[in-house]
This record gives sequence, C-alpha cells and structure tokens, in this order.
Amino acid sequence: MEIEVVAIGDEVLTGAVVNTNAAFIGERLLEAGYKVARHATLSDHPDAIKQGLKEAMGRSSLVITTGGLGPTCDDITRNAACALFSSETYFDETIAEDLKKRFGSLPISLEDQATVPVKAKAFMNTVGTAPGLVFEENGSTLILLPGVPYEMHEMFIKNVVPYLLEKHPPREKIFQKRVSFSVLTEGQVDPFLRVLEKEHPDVQCGIYPGYGILNVAFTSKRESEVVRAVAKVCDKFQEHYFVSPSGKLEEAVALFLTEKKKTLALAESITGGAMAAQLTAIPGASEYFLGSCVVYSNALKIAILHVSEKTLQEHGAVSREVALEMLQGIFKTTDADYGIAVTGIAGPTGATPNKPIGTVWAALGERRKEPFVEQFTGRGTRETIILYTCRRLFANLLTYCKKP
Amino acid sequence: MEIEVVAIGDEVLTGAVVNTNAAFIGERLLEAGYKVARHATLSDHPDAIKQGLKEAMGRSSLVITTGGLGPTCDDITRNAACALFSSETYFDETIAEDLKKRFGSLPISLEDQATVPVKAKAFMNTVGTAPGLVFEENGSTLILLPGVPYEMHEMFIKNVVPYLLEKHPPREKIFQKRVSFSVLTEGQVDPFLRVLEKEHPDVQCGIYPGYGILNVAFTSKRESEVVRAVAKVCDKFQEHYFVSPSGKLEEAVALFLTEKKKTLALAESITGGAMAAQLTAIPGASEYFLGSCVVYSNALKIAILHVSEKTLQEHGAVSREVALEMLQGIFKTTDADYGIAVTGIAGPTGATPNKPIGTVWAALGERRKEPFVEQFTGRGTRETIILYTCRRLFANLLTYCKKP
Repeated sequence: MEIEVVAIGDEVLTGAVVNTNAAFIGERLLEAGYKVARHATLSDHPDAIKQGLKEAMGRSSLVITTGGLGPTCDDITRNAACALFSSETYFDETIAEDLKKRFGSLPISLEDQATVPVKAKAFMNTVGTAPGLVFEENGSTLILLPGVPYEMHEMFIKNVVPYLLEKHPPREKIFQKRVSFSVLTEGQVDPFLRVLEKEHPDVQCGIYPGYGILNVAFTSKRESEVVRAVAKVCDKFQEHYFVSPSGKLEEAVALFLTEKKKTLALAESITGGAMAAQLTAIPGASEYFLGSCVVYSNALKIAILHVSEKTLQEHGAVSREVALEMLQGIFKTTDADYGIAVTGIAGPTGATPNKPIGTVWAALGERRKEPFVEQFTGRGTRETIILYTCRRLFANLLTYCKKP
Repeated sequence: MEIEVVAIGDEVLTGAVVNTNAAFIGERLLEAGYKVARHATLSDHPDAIKQGLKEAMGRSSLVITTGGLGPTCDDITRNAACALFSSETYFDETIAEDLKKRFGSLPISLEDQATVPVKAKAFMNTVGTAPGLVFEENGSTLILLPGVPYEMHEMFIKNVVPYLLEKHPPREKIFQKRVSFSVLTEGQVDPFLRVLEKEHPDVQCGIYPGYGILNVAFTSKRESEVVRAVAKVCDKFQEHYFVSPSGKLEEAVALFLTEKKKTLALAESITGGAMAAQLTAIPGASEYFLGSCVVYSNALKIAILHVSEKTLQEHGAVSREVALEMLQGIFKTTDADYGIAVTGIAGPTGATPNKPIGTVWAALGERRKEPFVEQFTGRGTRETIILYTCRRLFANLLTYCKKP
C-alpha cells in the first residue's frame, strides 16, 4: 500500500508553521509497520486542494491529510473532499451534542463543525472541535485530520492506527530501528555503514546528523537483519552509543540518573536554561533533577553560586576558573550528587580576540570527586552553539558517570 | 512563476527529522516577493527522486530541493538530477581546494563532494561540504541544496535569493504581513476577519493558532490593502497585540525591556527553565536578563529563593502563597526591576483532587509595586502546558508593564 501524507495550508507554505504533523504520522505509521512514500503540502485554494488530492490519490492508495478542517474562513479541506467524492453533507447530532457539552460557552461554529459528509465516517475529536473524516471508494482511502498537532496526535493514535490495522493491515511489515550516538560525525560512521550494507544487503541504512548527535537508522522487511546490523554498529561505536527510546541525550541522562537514584543540579550561563528546559520536558524530571541556577549576570553568579569577584575580574566570566567555581557553587547551594556548570559566548556579539564566538568552558562531576573540565568551540549560529553545548555536556556527563 | 520545494530523504518520511527547511525557504522567498505553491518530500530511492522531480518540474518552473547531497551512502540527489538533465560530471578544483583548506584533517570524501555536474552552476558551501547546484534548461530551474539546516540557510541567503532576484525577478510581488496576538482564540478573531475579507476582497486572511498565541496573516498583491487590513485587526484586538518581528512573545518582552533599560529575573518551577531558554535564545539577552532560579526541588526553593518551609507545608508547592514568596525571593536574590515566579503541575503525574494537571500559580510584577497574581489551567500535554504557561506569563508581563 502506497501511503502519502498531505498537509493543507498556506501557513505551512509560507513558513509561518513548521509541518511537524508529517513527522509524527511517519513515526507512528512506521511503528505500526507501514512506510510513508511521500509528503506534499498544498495551498488553501479549492482548486489546489482538489488537484493535489486527485494527484495523490492517483499515486497512492492511502492519502492522509492534515489541516483545513477548522471552523474559520481558510478551512476548506472538507468541501474539497466532498467535491472529489461527490458527497452531500448532513448535520451530525452526536457530534453537535458533544461539542455543546465541551464548548457550550465558547463562540465556535457548531453548524460547521458538526457537518459531516454523507460518504465519510467521522472520528470524534476529543480535545478540539473538528472531527476527522474517512472516505473509502474503489480501493482508495482518504483520511482528513485536523491540523492542530495535539488534536491530530490524539485522533491518530486512538482512531487512525486501529482503523488502518483493521481495514488495511500491512502486507509486509517494515522494521526500523534507530540508534543514537553522541559527538560523532558522518565521516566517522559512513565507511563502516558502507561495509555493513554489503554484509546485510536486505538492510537500508540512513545517517541523520544533528548538533552533537548522530542518528543511524536501519530499515528492512527482515527484523533479524535489523537487529544484527544494530548490534554491529553499537559495538563498533560503543563509546558514543547511548540508550534512549526517543533518541534524545537528555532522556539518556534522565534514565541513567533515575535508575541510579542520583540527583543532578546545573549552573548554566551560556545555555541560559536550555539544559534545564530539555531535562524538565521529560516526564518524571523531579525524580532526579533539583534545579538550575541560570546565572546570566555576574551578580547572580556571585549571589547564588558564590563565584568570587576576583576570579571573575582576573579570568573573565568565560574561563576554566569560573566554570570550576560555578560547579563548586552548585554543590554548596544544593545537595546534588552530580553537577554541570557551563559558561561561554553564544554570540553574535561578545567575542574577544582570545575568546571567539562559540568558546565554551564547562566543568562537571560528582560531589567530592575530581571534576571533568574542558574547553571546546561550538560552531554555527547562537542557536546551534547552545544546542551543541547542551548535548556535548549531557554526553560528557554520561561518559563521566560510566567511568569505572 | 510556480515554485515547489522538495525535501529528499527517508529520515523526513519516517519522522526522524522534522522538515524545517521548507518553512525556512517559504519565509525567505516570501520576504523576497515570491510565494511557494507546493511542498513535496521524496524517498531516498533513485526512481522515487527521478519520478518526483520530473512531476514537480512538470508543474512548476522553479523547483528547489534540500537533502541528499552529502558524501554518505544515502546521498543520491545529485546523481538523480544528472540523469534527469543527461549531464556528465567533472572534478572541480576550486571546491576541492576550499574543502582541503577547511577540512584537511577530517575524513570527508573530497572526490565526491567536489564532483559537479557539467550542466550545473555550483554555489560554494562555506560552512559544510556539499556545494549547492543550479540547473537551468528550457525555462525550468532546478536548485539542489544541502539538507543540514545551517548550511542550507547560509547558502540560501547568500546565493539562492540573489540568484533568483537577478535571473527570475518576481513578476507580481506578493506582500504578506503577519501579526501576533497573545491569549486570543480563533473563535474570537474569525467573525471579524470574515467581515474584513469582504471589505478587502484583494486580501487573503489566514489564522494560525498556537498555544497562548494566535497569528493572523494577510496576503495580497497590493501592499496598501495589506497595511489597511493589519491596522484594522490590530486596532480591534489592541489589548492582545504585541510587537515582535519574529512573532514571538519572548522577543516582544526583550524589545520592551531593552528599550526601557529595565532588567528581569525569573523564579521557575513548572516551566523548568523554558522561559529562561526562550529569552536567552534571542541575541542580546544579557542587556536585560539577569537569570533564572529554576527551583524544581523544594530544598532549592528554600535555599535560593527563601521560600519558607512552613508555607510549603501549609499550602503546598503549587499555591498562591508559594508563587508570591518565590517572587519576593527573586527580588531579594537579585536587583532585577521585574520578576516572574511560577509554580504548577505539568503532569502527567502529580495531580491531586484539588489541583488537576495543568494547574498553575504565577506572580509577577515590579519591585516594590503591587504584583499581579493569578491561577490558570493549561491544557493538553506536558509540552503544551509548559509552552502555554511561558507565553501566558510573557503576555501578562507585557500587559502589566504597559498599565498606566
């Protein structure tokens, strides 16, 4: 079964909104054994939608759209689909009742949101207003879903995946396993993967570099082959390999510390709270994470981390000495088992002749043990420097913790 | 000129990577007066790429691809384009020299990355390895760009936009203006926009709701009409309107405080550093931002914000009283002019009968002035609750600051 995912909306074409829905759908379908063959994004124009859906349905037996189902003026996907399937509509009392119950006092257009094409089956929207719709005709399936991510997510997991598994179970299940490595480059991994692909001709490899992170994906119809390829690459790069279902280093840190029943506190300057935000985005953070002193100003470095004014003056805020005092400070201020302290220049301003943009000094370690201190240089923009710094430090902490 | 943006790579189809490149290209082209008509994403398969590019070039006179130009095994876009244009390749000494200079010691495949199709013009990649490529034939333009976002961004701004403006200037310039409103719903804005569209038939409206934020876009070939529509909607919802070129509330906060030469410090519990990370992602944060006490544990609330143990015991960490003491604490610990303190339950665990998931207590204000305190409930997932909380508090701070 060829599957195509189509986003509808000028907001995606003009870049006002990043299409995260397509990625979500791709991941969930892969877990269920399906592979998406294509994405498309169409303009909010009736002709563009009709033409684009026709093309997609000509190529693919299952087309899933997101967006354009809401009650506002630019929401026209349902009408385009009705035209395509020559379907009348009716007012669905069950949906209307449910909307009244949940949004009674809000000024939403009941009339519009409870109007369903006669030829479609509706999926209830339990968190928003627009129901999902499924059309089936002559072996073609068209599923229309709302564009608001958390409404779509809910509906996709509760309704779409079970519907597909029942009506169109995957003929040949696809297996994919992704493994993540920290601070490793494409160039280091590629030669090994080229050999691996020859040893496992049924397996397709993919390399997806990030900042401070490298993901490798193995895809095959034979699960055992995927497992063998994964084992080989993890063995080869075991020092860089980390365990995290989501492929996120912060999750690997969370899993490790939670399991060891150890706690962590941070002293962040250059990362400005980004390390704390990444850790606390993962449920259960309070199990191991005590907090972070985001000390952007020197005054705050002194006030809550007890960094000495003299050290700041003599060595500057971005220095080995300040990073070390920040780490000592975090152990004074909290009773954390582990600490990470980081200071640096994210740019675009603030560089000095000796300290270019991207200069980072970091210290991390366990209470009363020898800390690990290093200087490195992040590359790219302010955003990529901060992201790389977070990931490198999470990776360093894992390496430090695992040392015998 | 019809424009289509095509991403190439299974990592996008399987959801391992979110396609932010298409959004970036859409925004930059719109600024230059062009509108993207379509997106597509194709699999890393030679046939899929060749077929997909053929279709795209049949529909659109300009096709821009991202991805699949690197030196690794799954990078096959260049070969597919060569087949399509029946082009031989040659080894480009200038590119090879540049790569040697920048990556001398790294194990990258020079041979591959310096190989250029005879029929294409190359754009130098100043930050990565793969050059961009432009094919022009029979009125069709195909531009191949690398998939790594920061390499592509660099090349797009430095090479692609100037190239297009010179070779294919927009015939009818498209104008778009986006305005952002805080804590406003689609339902509140839609009726007004429907009237506006009748008053300005040349203007197309779009509504893009986020969490705690609502963006409205007006697009037209007539700039004066866009300006008039924008003025009307900003006037109507002036209490929710905020000024930020990027549409981000944190940028509006940064602009406001920098201009007023006031400083801000935070006391974050539920947001876990997310507010600080959002503020410090914007260059120049050290002008006004002193730091954040991310006090996830009660011990840290006591240690650096002087919240009393008694208050924590009597009212619980998520309470009006604790939010207020956290705000007082931030004024004791720092000399900030403004402070925001927030505590809550992000879930999925931690709810009590009286305090469901999403319960937030926040206090904010100016030193020695009456603070603004409120309780609200975030909806959705842990992620959306945190995001909504950040935005609502930034919006509240702006409203508070602007009060006479």
